[in-house]
Amino acid sequence: MRDFSLDHRWLSINTATVRKSRGVDLPLTEIIEACASRGIRAISPWRDQVAAVGLDTISKLVRTLGLELSGYCRGGMFPAADAQGLRMARDDNRRAVDEACELQAACLVLVVGGLPGALAGKPAHKDIALARSQVRDGIAELLDYARSVRMPLAIEPLHPMYAADRACINTLEQALDICDVLDPDRPEREGHDGPAALGVAVDVYHVWWDPKLKAQIERAGKRRLLAFHVCDWLTPTRDLLNDRGMMGDGIIDIPLIRGWVEGQGFAGYSEVEIFSTDNWWQRNHGEVLDTCIERHRRAV
Amino acid sequence: MRDFSLDHRWLSINTATVRKSRGVDLPLTEIIEACASRGIRAISPWRDQVAAVGLDTISKLVRTLGLELSGYCRGGMFPAADAQGLRMARDDNRRAVDEACELQAACLVLVVGGLPGALAGKPAHKDIALARSQVRDGIAELLDYARSVRMPLAIEPLHPMYAADRACINTLEQALDICDVLDPDRPEREGHDGPAALGVAVDVYHVWWDPKLKAQIERAGKRRLLAFHVCDWLTPTRDLLNDRGMMGDGIIDIPLIRGWVEGQGFAGYSEVEIFSTDNWWQRNHGEVLDTCIERHRRAV
Repeated sequence: MRDFSLDHRWLSINTATVRKSRGVDLPLTEIIEACASRGIRAISPWRDQVAAVGLDTISKLVRTLGLELSGYCRGGMFPAADAQGLRMARDDNRRAVDEACELQAACLVLVVGGLPGALAGKPAHKDIALARSQVRDGIAELLDYARSVRMPLAIEPLHPMYAADRACINTLEQALDICDVLDPDRPEREGHDGPAALGVAVDVYHVWWDPKLKAQIERAGKRRLLAFHVCDWLTPTRDLLNDRGMMGDGIIDIPLIRGWVEGQGFAGYSEVEIFSTDNWWQRNHGEVLDTCIERHRRAV
Repeated sequence: MRDFSLDHRWLSINTATVRKSRGVDLPLTEIIEACASRGIRAISPWRDQVAAVGLDTISKLVRTLGLELSGYCRGGMFPAADAQGLRMARDDNRRAVDEACELQAACLVLVVGGLPGALAGKPAHKDIALARSQVRDGIAELLDYARSVRMPLAIEPLHPMYAADRACINTLEQALDICDVLDPDRPEREGHDGPAALGVAVDVYHVWWDPKLKAQIERAGKRRLLAFHVCDWLTPTRDLLNDRGMMGDGIIDIPLIRGWVEGQGFAGYSEVEIFSTDNWWQRNHGEVLDTCIERHRRAV
């Protein structure tokens, strides 16, 4: 297992973490410059943050600064209430793949969606099995395209508390079952041990509770472990979405899980992803990034 | 599958549902009388509500009124930070079994506990594997006693969002793995098909999201399906604990899950358990009970 205590070369910042500085939206260009000036070598930006500045601008900036993208957030949201909605999701996901390619991201992260309309508080139906089947079909179709442009897709199982409105893939086991069906893992045929075309993003916040976590990380193996996200689970958790804690402030044994992931050969970034309406988003982004660096050294 | 549309003979009220009337604590005696006066045949009371009035009083009252107990809430909270804490949990759980016997409850429901201290916001450690091992040992010890007095124990897997502070058993599969170890199911040896000594309480709120739910309900089978709890998952859910919805107000396909449970031969009560600080607890308890009856007929 790598020693993180000496430097922060394997720290990546998911740019949602500093989406706001003192409660005010912070442009992605400023986020990137603040990361680069601290020797942070990788980021994972959100599509809306890229779009607000412009894909070309961001693409040039990250190349100029030599930043890597540990992932691109995000594709997914496959389920829809009608054929038109399904088509719109398909088209939007192809654009997400194209953007990820332009930004040379390590993978496109998929938050797969839940019951159509539920995120807006108006679920179209209660059939989670149907949503799951639309997710599987949506990933299958997107995978054909992503494979053709060599952009790995990382299914991110979300915590079961998001099953209704954000993602109906809720365990690593469930995500890997889809990988098995859509992208049977045959490295010997593909002649390499690089990233699989379809794999998973392991976010400790979403999976720490899972009694089968260690076994499923081992099942995933190096080629399907495309991303590793960190933050912490607070007790109490005051909000279902915007109360993700800073590493070390909660109860997740992050080094234990990182050890399992690295035990499979994963050697990528630890990506910090914090949504925190009342806490970190109210602070100055420089302070937040400095804290991420410090906690990456001693709590990841 | 039983037809619930004609009457509410299979409705049970978990008394937390009307713990407050218009925001004020309601004594269990009044709850019981309000249930009985509406032809509700079963309840599931909480220990603190019983203690506030007195076990003898409640015991006599339910016998006089001919009420059944679909369960008794609750034993569990096994993990502790030291030997004294473990002993206290053991002793308290034996008392819970005794009370359940006195009240002739169908089972004692176990909310098994999480990281010691986490519920008070001061977790003693981050080792969920240790907590899980203490849970297994605690259930094993309690089971010896419960078996001797013929009180079935129902492990209630809680939603993964409660893994840190309330229950580190979070899926039906995990609960049934414990049943397999501690109480191998051998009806032919025991010579009956009545309730197992150790089984599960299936609460739709906690398990609806689980992609393996149907398979695990089938695995449980009739003897281990000791209780069936209903409410609904709201979108959005505004609070991790106190925003359980009334059946029909959320996105859980309750009849689908009830069909799976009854498909195994379960013929017990559907127990309504709602915690709702801002909504149902602010209303008059009579209105809440009337709504439970109406929703039991058309949404369960």
